Amino acid sequence: MSRFWSAIVAGLSPYVPGEQPKIGGLVKLNTNENPYPPSPAVAQAIGAELGTNGQTLRLYPDPQSAALRAAIAEREGLASEQVFVGNGSDEVLAFAFQGLLAQSRPLRFPDVTYSFYPTWCRLYGIDFETVPLGEGFALRVDDYTGGAPVILPNPNAPTGRAIARAEVARLCAANADWPVVIDEAYVEFGAETAAPLVASHPNLLVVRTLSKSHALAGLRVGYALGQPPLVEALVRLKDSFNSYPLDRLAQAGAEAALRDQAWFERSRDAVVANRAQLSGELAALGFEVLPSLANFVFARHPAHDGAALARALRERGIVVRHFASPRIEQWLRITVGTPQQCATLVAAMREIVATRPR
Amino acid sequence: MSRFWSAIVAGLSPYVPGEQPKIGGLVKLNTNENPYPPSPAVAQAIGAELGTNGQTLRLYPDPQSAALRAAIAEREGLASEQVFVGNGSDEVLAFAFQGLLAQSRPLRFPDVTYSFYPTWCRLYGIDFETVPLGEGFALRVDDYTGGAPVILPNPNAPTGRAIARAEVARLCAANADWPVVIDEAYVEFGAETAAPLVASHPNLLVVRTLSKSHALAGLRVGYALGQPPLVEALVRLKDSFNSYPLDRLAQAGAEAALRDQAWFERSRDAVVANRAQLSGELAALGFEVLPSLANFVFARHPAHDGAALARALRERGIVVRHFASPRIEQWLRITVGTPQQCATLVAAMREIVATRPR
Repeated sequence: MSRFWSAIVAGLSPYVPGEQPKIGGLVKLNTNENPYPPSPAVAQAIGAELGTNGQTLRLYPDPQSAALRAAIAEREGLASEQVFVGNGSDEVLAFAFQGLLAQSRPLRFPDVTYSFYPTWCRLYGIDFETVPLGEGFALRVDDYTGGAPVILPNPNAPTGRAIARAEVARLCAANADWPVVIDEAYVEFGAETAAPLVASHPNLLVVRTLSKSHALAGLRVGYALGQPPLVEALVRLKDSFNSYPLDRLAQAGAEAALRDQAWFERSRDAVVANRAQLSGELAALGFEVLPSLANFVFARHPAHDGAALARALRERGIVVRHFASPRIEQWLRITVGTPQQCATLVAAMREIVATRPR
Repeated sequence: MSRFWSAIVAGLSPYVPGEQPKIGGLVKLNTNENPYPPSPAVAQAIGAELGTNGQTLRLYPDPQSAALRAAIAEREGLASEQVFVGNGSDEVLAFAFQGLLAQSRPLRFPDVTYSFYPTWCRLYGIDFETVPLGEGFALRVDDYTGGAPVILPNPNAPTGRAIARAEVARLCAANADWPVVIDEAYVEFGAETAAPLVASHPNLLVVRTLSKSHALAGLRVGYALGQPPLVEALVRLKDSFNSYPLDRLAQAGAEAALRDQAWFERSRDAVVANRAQLSGELAALGFEVLPSLANFVFARHPAHDGAALARALRERGIVVRHFASPRIEQWLRITVGTPQQCATLVAAMREIVATRPR
């Protein structure tokens, strides 16, 4: 606390990101990074953008990110005016909270979900109601039909459970007078995207990131898809905050990644295969594993405490994510790694569950 | 306007950045970019950070930017806890408005200044009073001594006029109960920095950018210097908005630029020499040229309309910045380019002022 702080600062509850360990050699399965590298076209495009000795960096980037937005529009079958880009999907989501989800009725989202949502609500003074997930952490659209702004991750995090596109359409129709944001950070690993609903649903905003699907967590690029009035709200906020959120290298690299669809598909297929393998092996060790459509699995062991398991893994050089939050404190969110990383994790788990009963 | 917008969106007055022309071959003297390339160490560091085929990009960046903050602290003779970094100084300034300058008394800044300030005030609901600049657009600290939050660019933009460090100290002392932000976007081209005052002034925040001084407008890195409580306000806002504002390449490139002091000094000395030459040649053509300590000059011609001059230059492939704002609509802000660019501009001006009297 400081006498120089604005009134808002003391009341914030900042988000705590997953650890980015500074020591090497760890098996890092804690922040849902893609275990495979991005398309080689990314580094090539960044090299080309740099020019000789980085000389292009002296010039400002395109504040509208026109080329990148065109690439996204092309991939999604939309127009550039239906695309907004930002410095990671967190920045895009922040603008969506500030510009769309701050309404006269409380915002609704699941009780177990992306833990940044309450943080943005506090930042922007947004009233919210959390809606309990159903049996097995299922998302039930019927719980969100009362007429209010809604944000849902699909698949949900940290559970990995998804709903079908038809359910998203039903959600939009049931809240037709209110903005509905679908946070599709993990959608490209097997769930159905709501992007095809954008044309017919003026209240729908779909948010994506290249961090996981395109292995570009280090480059900070996210985007939103929606009808032009929704996109305009985000643009107005961006241009009232920071006109140039995406640097030249991020714009060039992201565009190259999106244009290499074959690389994306190979990488995604490998993650999906590893996920099935990892889920099966954890189940064989006695874990309850939720059916995941994301690039992580959410699992608990009936005889072992979640926090203790996370600590025991860490002692063996393996990092996973544990949330000390209601309903999920016995669970671990484990990023789907390479087959080697998953095998290392499973071997460690086998040892831990055998030797350290609760 | 859309029924899905939050209450705040319609009331915004978004900032309009200077044009980033999409056609090539223009002499671009409109957005105060450095005419010289960044240190070659920048591209090398970015290449090293990319790793083979860009594989490091799959991992999140350090959300605290520890290495970059250490480099800044070392350069400024401060501790890392006194350094905040953001996605360009615009993001840093936005957090300073939201977290520090939103106080119970109206914020004061000059009537002629960086045109983003009123935009941030509107975004964050900050009352403000503009204080008229004195004779020749001079900044007079005596006009800001009433006890209120203050933000001043030093040198001021778009005038290029600066105040001495002792004047900044006087400003901080006169408003000791209120935050004082000094926006030093252009300070490295000859004005006195207030950074040495940070240790003794708990209400002082100094904001910088690498865009101009280090020729990295395309990389989006800015920073703030202040005592830990002020830095903490910014960190709390950042972590309530977007945990990872700086991508891996921006962090690596910025650090390399800051560590190549020799390159910076050569580049700065060249800009300072070109500024003297350009100012003299414009004066010889009859222009009134303010004494600038920035990397631009602010000039008007007694017999030629400012907007008309800007248009005539544009027709000749030269872009400068004209603001259609009170008190300065007859003036042009001209970025100091290379000697060749400046010569092209001066030759065009010579022709224009000779053949197109008002």
